[in-house]
Amino acid sequence: MGDLLVVGSVALDSVETPFGKVHDVLGGSATYFSYAASFFTQVRLVATVGEDFPEAHLRLLQDRGVDLDGLTTSRGRTFRWAGQYSYDLNEAKTLDTQLNVFADFRPSLGDGLRRAPFVFLANIDPELQLDVLRQMEARPRLVALDTMNFWIQGKQEALRRVLAESDVVTINDAEARQLASEPNLVRAARAIAAIGPRTVVVKRGEYGALMMTDGAFFFVPAYPLESVYDPTGAGDTFAGGFMGYLAAQERTDAAAMRRALVYGSVMASFTVEDFSLKRLTRLGPADIADRYAAFHDLIRLEQ
Amino acid sequence: MGDLLVVGSVALDSVETPFGKVHDVLGGSATYFSYAASFFTQVRLVATVGEDFPEAHLRLLQDRGVDLDGLTTSRGRTFRWAGQYSYDLNEAKTLDTQLNVFADFRPSLGDGLRRAPFVFLANIDPELQLDVLRQMEARPRLVALDTMNFWIQGKQEALRRVLAESDVVTINDAEARQLASEPNLVRAARAIAAIGPRTVVVKRGEYGALMMTDGAFFFVPAYPLESVYDPTGAGDTFAGGFMGYLAAQERTDAAAMRRALVYGSVMASFTVEDFSLKRLTRLGPADIADRYAAFHDLIRLEQ
Repeated sequence: MGDLLVVGSVALDSVETPFGKVHDVLGGSATYFSYAASFFTQVRLVATVGEDFPEAHLRLLQDRGVDLDGLTTSRGRTFRWAGQYSYDLNEAKTLDTQLNVFADFRPSLGDGLRRAPFVFLANIDPELQLDVLRQMEARPRLVALDTMNFWIQGKQEALRRVLAESDVVTINDAEARQLASEPNLVRAARAIAAIGPRTVVVKRGEYGALMMTDGAFFFVPAYPLESVYDPTGAGDTFAGGFMGYLAAQERTDAAAMRRALVYGSVMASFTVEDFSLKRLTRLGPADIADRYAAFHDLIRLEQ
Repeated sequence: MGDLLVVGSVALDSVETPFGKVHDVLGGSATYFSYAASFFTQVRLVATVGEDFPEAHLRLLQDRGVDLDGLTTSRGRTFRWAGQYSYDLNEAKTLDTQLNVFADFRPSLGDGLRRAPFVFLANIDPELQLDVLRQMEARPRLVALDTMNFWIQGKQEALRRVLAESDVVTINDAEARQLASEPNLVRAARAIAAIGPRTVVVKRGEYGALMMTDGAFFFVPAYPLESVYDPTGAGDTFAGGFMGYLAAQERTDAAAMRRALVYGSVMASFTVEDFSLKRLTRLGPADIADRYAAFHDLIRLEQ
């Protein structure tokens, strides 16, 4: 079982969907990622929170065995995000972003973190992502990163540099088209792989995920759910299941990548069933195994 | 190999997409369906055209072995449809519809057609779909039908009656939600199955197709193509591949349905690669087998 390092945000979210409303609940890319990955492997989280961050949230992660040595408390308030979803749950409308302590976040890896074989660089400034890689003692076995339109637009050069040093990128379809300047997704995926990553995972929300590894495509649909309450964190729990599985197996071959894509989809499918990490906190290993089997049945051609 | 009867439209289409423009080319639901299904089984087409319908188009279908005994020529002009697609190829904007001879189309099945074991009722007035079923000598082994928002809105009672007598319905996602008055697709599919059909196929265009058979779901993505020129006819060739395969195998069990869904997706993936039936006319059995294998690889979890 390989250690899995994640660098990203821990936040307090306020979210409104057609099905309800929550205020200052636990959120953040590294939070969702860590919680999901903790079902598979040893996770080490690097992030920063403010002095107002509730102890109970830390205990939630500790209870899952997540190593919080790299989580610092900075003077000031925790990063806050407020967003709204309409019935088209595929796209969030950001109502408010308060970076607070996250504005000065400079990840610093302690000794125990610099040798992690599996690394996930959640959606932060690509210059910080690069800086994290510079701090690693040796080239990790697998480096994955997430990014967004904001960095594609504003810091594309740095983003391309960190992509050149990564093995996996997770990106949504609109962002893939934007980064590659190419409307066709297949050609966009190939163009992104040409920058560096061997594996490109295109997230399509309710339409599933398309992965290109070594030039071959694999597709997993989103799980057909009867109730979707809040898509916040789906992409990060997806990445958590994906990387958590690979780290646990200590494998990076194409067959393992396919199973990892399903485990990512499994974790995302739970996340959207309730607000914040609520559904995940009610999860046991049997639930994950059952939904993995259900996914397999959903895409199995020969029985 | 079971005979496959299709009742629907044969038309002349004018289509504009960002990639080109064609005028009065061969189109129509029964045309696309027949051509696609002809690669699998004996197809018998029931439709009507006007006196202006080009001989060459008939020969195209005859050359594929499609039985045209049920294709009548009526006084007047052939049904014409004009549509436009923007870069979002998922939705057509209808510019013009001239029903012409299709307005008075009353399908009449000759002796040879009333015993077909496999029947596809393409997207026409549900009262005509019902009338076709009334003319069958015995209950066919498998009845599938396609429909659209126009009939869901204007003739829902007749539509529900023909659905109650059908085994398979193909419908796009917006129409499934409309027919079931239910925004959630899983619950919509269950509601539609409750009307009668054992199998509900929800077509999602570039996002693939979701099938529910006996309550179990199966998903096939659209094939990741580098070039999509014109989505016209994709849904009908999808149905043609689906029904053609089942008729050829003389099977209607769930495992065969899954393979049929992939063959449907295979045929649709070719259709969108060029205007009208152009790509289909360049198709050989090896192309179909190759793309079926490519689809299998695209969704195969265990290798």
